[in-house]
Amino acid sequence: MPVTAWSYLLFLLPSLAASAPSFSSVNPRTWRSRQASNTQTKRWSNDSYPTSSQLCAAPGAQAMNAPYPNVWSGLTGEETASVTAWLFSQPQFNLTVTAEAGDWDNSLLMIELMEPNKTDVLNYLENSGPLPSRYAHVIINHRASEEPVYQDLLVGPLPLQHDTVTSEPLTYPYTRKTEGKVRNLDADDETWQAWKANVSSTILDITLDLWNGSYLGLDNDTLVVFGIDPLWQDDGITRWDQFWNSQESVQESLTLLPLGLYFTTNATGRDASKWTLDGWLYNSIFYETTEAFRAAYYSPGFVKNGANVDGSWAYSDQEGEIPALDTNFPPISIAPSGSRYFTDPDQNYVKWMDFEFYTSFSRDTGLSLHDIKYKGDRIIYELSLQEALAHYAGNDPVQSGTAYLDTYYGFGPFAFELIKGYDCPAYATYMNSSFYNGETTRTHIDSICLFETEADYPIQRHSTSEYASATKNIYFTIRTVATVGNYDYMFSYEFYMDGSINIVVRASGYIQSAYFAKNEDYGYQIHDFLSGSMHDHVLNFKIDFDILGTSNTMTTAANVAATEVYPWSKGKARNTMKLQRGTIENEDQAKINWASNGATAFTVVNTDAKNIYGESRGYRIHPSSPTIHLTVENSSNLEKAANWAKNDLYVTRQKDTEPKSSHPYQSQDVFNPPIDFDAFFDGESLVQEDIVVWANVGMHHVPHTGDLPNTVFTTAHSSLVLSPLNYLLGSPTRETVNMVKLLYGGDEGTTVETFGQGTAECAVPSVQGLMPDLTQYVGDQVIRKFPYDPNHPYFETESI
Amino acid sequence: MPVTAWSYLLFLLPSLAASAPSFSSVNPRTWRSRQASNTQTKRWSNDSYPTSSQLCAAPGAQAMNAPYPNVWSGLTGEETASVTAWLFSQPQFNLTVTAEAGDWDNSLLMIELMEPNKTDVLNYLENSGPLPSRYAHVIINHRASEEPVYQDLLVGPLPLQHDTVTSEPLTYPYTRKTEGKVRNLDADDETWQAWKANVSSTILDITLDLWNGSYLGLDNDTLVVFGIDPLWQDDGITRWDQFWNSQESVQESLTLLPLGLYFTTNATGRDASKWTLDGWLYNSIFYETTEAFRAAYYSPGFVKNGANVDGSWAYSDQEGEIPALDTNFPPISIAPSGSRYFTDPDQNYVKWMDFEFYTSFSRDTGLSLHDIKYKGDRIIYELSLQEALAHYAGNDPVQSGTAYLDTYYGFGPFAFELIKGYDCPAYATYMNSSFYNGETTRTHIDSICLFETEADYPIQRHSTSEYASATKNIYFTIRTVATVGNYDYMFSYEFYMDGSINIVVRASGYIQSAYFAKNEDYGYQIHDFLSGSMHDHVLNFKIDFDILGTSNTMTTAANVAATEVYPWSKGKARNTMKLQRGTIENEDQAKINWASNGATAFTVVNTDAKNIYGESRGYRIHPSSPTIHLTVENSSNLEKAANWAKNDLYVTRQKDTEPKSSHPYQSQDVFNPPIDFDAFFDGESLVQEDIVVWANVGMHHVPHTGDLPNTVFTTAHSSLVLSPLNYLLGSPTRETVNMVKLLYGGDEGTTVETFGQGTAECAVPSVQGLMPDLTQYVGDQVIRKFPYDPNHPYFETESI
Repeated sequence: MPVTAWSYLLFLLPSLAASAPSFSSVNPRTWRSRQASNTQTKRWSNDSYPTSSQLCAAPGAQAMNAPYPNVWSGLTGEETASVTAWLFSQPQFNLTVTAEAGDWDNSLLMIELMEPNKTDVLNYLENSGPLPSRYAHVIINHRASEEPVYQDLLVGPLPLQHDTVTSEPLTYPYTRKTEGKVRNLDADDETWQAWKANVSSTILDITLDLWNGSYLGLDNDTLVVFGIDPLWQDDGITRWDQFWNSQESVQESLTLLPLGLYFTTNATGRDASKWTLDGWLYNSIFYETTEAFRAAYYSPGFVKNGANVDGSWAYSDQEGEIPALDTNFPPISIAPSGSRYFTDPDQNYVKWMDFEFYTSFSRDTGLSLHDIKYKGDRIIYELSLQEALAHYAGNDPVQSGTAYLDTYYGFGPFAFELIKGYDCPAYATYMNSSFYNGETTRTHIDSICLFETEADYPIQRHSTSEYASATKNIYFTIRTVATVGNYDYMFSYEFYMDGSINIVVRASGYIQSAYFAKNEDYGYQIHDFLSGSMHDHVLNFKIDFDILGTSNTMTTAANVAATEVYPWSKGKARNTMKLQRGTIENEDQAKINWASNGATAFTVVNTDAKNIYGESRGYRIHPSSPTIHLTVENSSNLEKAANWAKNDLYVTRQKDTEPKSSHPYQSQDVFNPPIDFDAFFDGESLVQEDIVVWANVGMHHVPHTGDLPNTVFTTAHSSLVLSPLNYLLGSPTRETVNMVKLLYGGDEGTTVETFGQGTAECAVPSVQGLMPDLTQYVGDQVIRKFPYDPNHPYFETESI
Repeated sequence: MPVTAWSYLLFLLPSLAASAPSFSSVNPRTWRSRQASNTQTKRWSNDSYPTSSQLCAAPGAQAMNAPYPNVWSGLTGEETASVTAWLFSQPQFNLTVTAEAGDWDNSLLMIELMEPNKTDVLNYLENSGPLPSRYAHVIINHRASEEPVYQDLLVGPLPLQHDTVTSEPLTYPYTRKTEGKVRNLDADDETWQAWKANVSSTILDITLDLWNGSYLGLDNDTLVVFGIDPLWQDDGITRWDQFWNSQESVQESLTLLPLGLYFTTNATGRDASKWTLDGWLYNSIFYETTEAFRAAYYSPGFVKNGANVDGSWAYSDQEGEIPALDTNFPPISIAPSGSRYFTDPDQNYVKWMDFEFYTSFSRDTGLSLHDIKYKGDRIIYELSLQEALAHYAGNDPVQSGTAYLDTYYGFGPFAFELIKGYDCPAYATYMNSSFYNGETTRTHIDSICLFETEADYPIQRHSTSEYASATKNIYFTIRTVATVGNYDYMFSYEFYMDGSINIVVRASGYIQSAYFAKNEDYGYQIHDFLSGSMHDHVLNFKIDFDILGTSNTMTTAANVAATEVYPWSKGKARNTMKLQRGTIENEDQAKINWASNGATAFTVVNTDAKNIYGESRGYRIHPSSPTIHLTVENSSNLEKAANWAKNDLYVTRQKDTEPKSSHPYQSQDVFNPPIDFDAFFDGESLVQEDIVVWANVGMHHVPHTGDLPNTVFTTAHSSLVLSPLNYLLGSPTRETVNMVKLLYGGDEGTTVETFGQGTAECAVPSVQGLMPDLTQYVGDQVIRKFPYDPNHPYFETESI
């Protein structure tokens, strides 16, 4: 690095922030935030694991060097600090440190590595081209303006140097060309908080009468007010908000406590004096003014409904009769020989059996996988979550108006430390994840786990009266969990010995519920005054297949009923079926739903890479558990903000200008979002081109009593599997030694062939000793970036 | 038991059979049989398990007494023997012992318990009525006739008594009313074997020239001939057969070795002198006579294709480069505290946590579950496989004409001993299964396994900045594997702590393949001259729900797009969605396909058992991985034999006269099968009636190179889950103690709440010592029934 690197600035700048860490909320929706607590410095250690060679092996991935540097991985701490310092040094940004910034100050929301263009990466990997230039992707929250905007910038190249630093609006990856700017509907958070409290105070008599509660913007408030997302944008900016009861314990039951009183605000513009309270709704009756509502409330015959009140029904703690034998320690998976995979922690590189890949981690979408190779050949350039939609409906304006686009909140910030032995097996190994937040880099410790497991069924078997053969089904998983507000999304990428990759999403945590009154057409009544608010979860994944090169084609093979006369059928027509082979020729054909009765197989092949039998080598994509697309058609909430959710899968031409299907600020301008996914489809040929598949998982969720207190991962489950189709000449499951063949029934008795399998010649002195020490569960590690203070990391559990 | 019991006859009858065991083939399709070998007397033992109390517990279910006798379980050995003896004593049956019976002799095919009528069982269970009478279900193979038939008989009541034994045709459970008789198209097996060899011998010159092989009905034949199932029945009885190469090792690769030469026989009637060879097919060219085929064969320009030859490509043994670290012993599940479930082995009763059920085992369909209770209430009266269809298609007459209905072969006879540590975890416990065969009772030892497992993900979790909670996902499985010819079907019933039951079917083993010539519209070419013959697997399950009594209703709840104006929407129409609730009113509405986009939830409820919130308590049924119904419409192979395969699920009124959707001899008269499932649908009301759900799992299977040598269980997978919907008032997952809550971030550091969880204070001196001793894998245990010889069981591996 040249001595002129901008990073020297770090040590010259005055301390603009207090030395004690301090945070402001990026996200004004407090119910989506974790609540405050103090710092914590303990760390996980492996002290309790046996280490003697006679004992079963301790966890820990095997070490190896990645074949090349990870070009997708995040910025270094120094890079982030240098960019922060440079941005603060530039008067045109007029930045205020986050901790001190108010509604009319500009602040720095994000600094991340700008993911390099595929063109540049492939030039590096395939053509010995240079390492792609590194740029920082910056988001500035411009609030010092009548027209507040978020702006995406590119700053670089890195390392920053005095004479070459440039900053330019980031526009090329977006279909909307407005210099990377999107309006900021949340700029007036402080004003809005005050407004809510003020509106609520005007009916204090009623909130006290109905619920013995108040919301006045005070520390001792016993009610909470929050509402729709996205805001209504078709006629100015309209808000709808609801009163909710407060949770009474540490357990985060808030979203189970709606109270059924709603108000609407026209909050157009930044001048709150022009905002208007436009009405109240209670028990499905709309009142245009507070006076009208109050008059009705105190009239004879006004129907008052009950309140949803916190209690053990909403808590996940053990309750009820313990089933017989349940206090006996249950079955558990162990890894007697330790881990059987490699990592290069410096490069976020992972290798298991014949699979290898790199990982990256972003604020918006969390964990991504890159350059997934199988048997040395790239099969997937990128596998990554793009967006998660939770679209509600209801007879009330808050449920009806809710359609969360979760990258707004970000999966990265909420990918917390995993609970060892519960979220992942006790023997799993872990990686950290980091993201930028308020002039710090925040690290979720042990937030990504890696582990192998033996499935409860073999991958292959066959038996006759002479022999029985079976092969163990050992698979590898990389997993994160992101708790975005009430919901816990568990993302698992599973790799199998048959060459398949399973993309699995499960959901647990708290549902967001509806007040029960007249909501029967939108959900089941599940508690005293509670309705399980119906909603669709749809999550979009980018799967940039590169099957033996970038020239790929999406083919179809449909099982179709047919009536045929054959040379041998004596002139008779026979009712049978055929395999109808086809191709997705171009982007006009490329918005696809799974066929009725699962009749059509979709396979990405390289037609220039046929096998010796003339079949194209490829990877198939198909649901491994049910998936959905969005029920709602032309959603009034979403307009153009989630066009990727309308179908099950899509194929587009890969372009450096179309790297993502969604943007975290889609919700801020739903009629003209940063990325209109429909604009990707312009009829281009998809035959032997570099193609990208965008595929959805998800579920229709109509919560029932069994969702109380928390939805269960068992049934809240959706997944896609990518599996080789004519890719190799035989099943790769034969390569493992973890198989057996029994020859029996002969004169010699039964012989057992084990093919050189390893044995587990080790002891476990105490199974209990294999259990993780959960007292070591900690909060986030934080490193201050401005002023840069790399040598004094501290721990923090307060939510961002 | 009265002293007049017929069983005394057993000891009086002369010995009609040789004392050495001997078997004839029930099934003439030799390629579907296991091959011969000799006897074997070793047994599995647990000697290698540690037993000290300091060591982790040995397997073995906890003992308990079933609450009432199992009324579905099989006949006792003595009952079977008494019925056998009685039948042989009755001149009208004119029985010959199986070992000595030829094509023109009557023989005894099956004796089983006739499953009692639900009416009688519920009278016993609910009204303190008498134990249902026990009858034997007998099948006699009447071949001593120009019109050979199989006949189902009822013999009883049991125990047999001199003056009250009756035998009557079994007709009431069948829609076809022909005294329990169905024609037997396989009566002339010996004649047919000779015919095939004779036909083949007429072209010996050609088989030698093409493949250097012969099929002459001799021990040293190097070719195999087999063909379609069902036989064509629309114009007399037409057979199509194909030449196949022999496998060259113990590995059962036969179905990968088609040779592409076919001949057709009109085999109508029992007089083989009237049978005619009606033509040959090679390379899609049909020749009406052997002479025409020979003339063409020796003409210039005749195209000869290559042969599929056995070799290591078709073997499941380890082959290829061993992946790095694969010889290290992989992760494995252990049960440190032993089993946490109860069984009553005498009554085939199982209890795990809040689930309990009885099992039975039949020749046709293998394992069934009965009276499944959850928290003390019956939820399912019967859960059982009914039939499995594998419907092929192809450009050749053999693939085109194949539509196996596998209960013809039977799942019971092929539910072999499980491979411990591979088919089920090393710590699983096992049950035996038995069926009648050729005057013996044959027992598959350790053919049903029971085990608990911890899933690789929790069942619940949630975390905030103050706490993190998670609950382990421990589930229970009962499993059998049936290798019906080439295919291994793994049937698992999984029980979860959320109250759900998962019905899982996986397939491995060898595909049945096609000769490649001109088959590209029916499959992929996967080897030298081989096509992966496309086929649909459809398996039908009976699920007789009894939700809080027998008055039940199938309800629907559809997520539908909607455009609505609300009191609060200022007159604007909003695009949203609604929950459209409905009811399957009667059998006219009760042939159902899963809705597009999974939009409709199907739930069996009891509308007279509403919960305190007014919602009906019920169990939902939905796919947990993709399922299918049959692609082929009005199959020319099946005609009316598998009408249950046309849709995804069905609802019918429960009737003692409609206990099963299929019969093992459906294939023998496809135009008029014993059970025409369509006849169950006669418009009866289904509202608050005793209803039965018949649901299909299955997959479209278009084999590719990855199916060589064996299909893999990972992707060949289909399942349905039955899960409570508003059944309880909250999630039953809170009852387990296997959960944790971490309180962290506070002043006191992290506290770990474990809710009374058990600990695993035990040692595993050697993990290897937990592995089963697979040299103990044995064949079947056999007890001769006629003459009855209960004290001299022997072991046998020869196939039935």
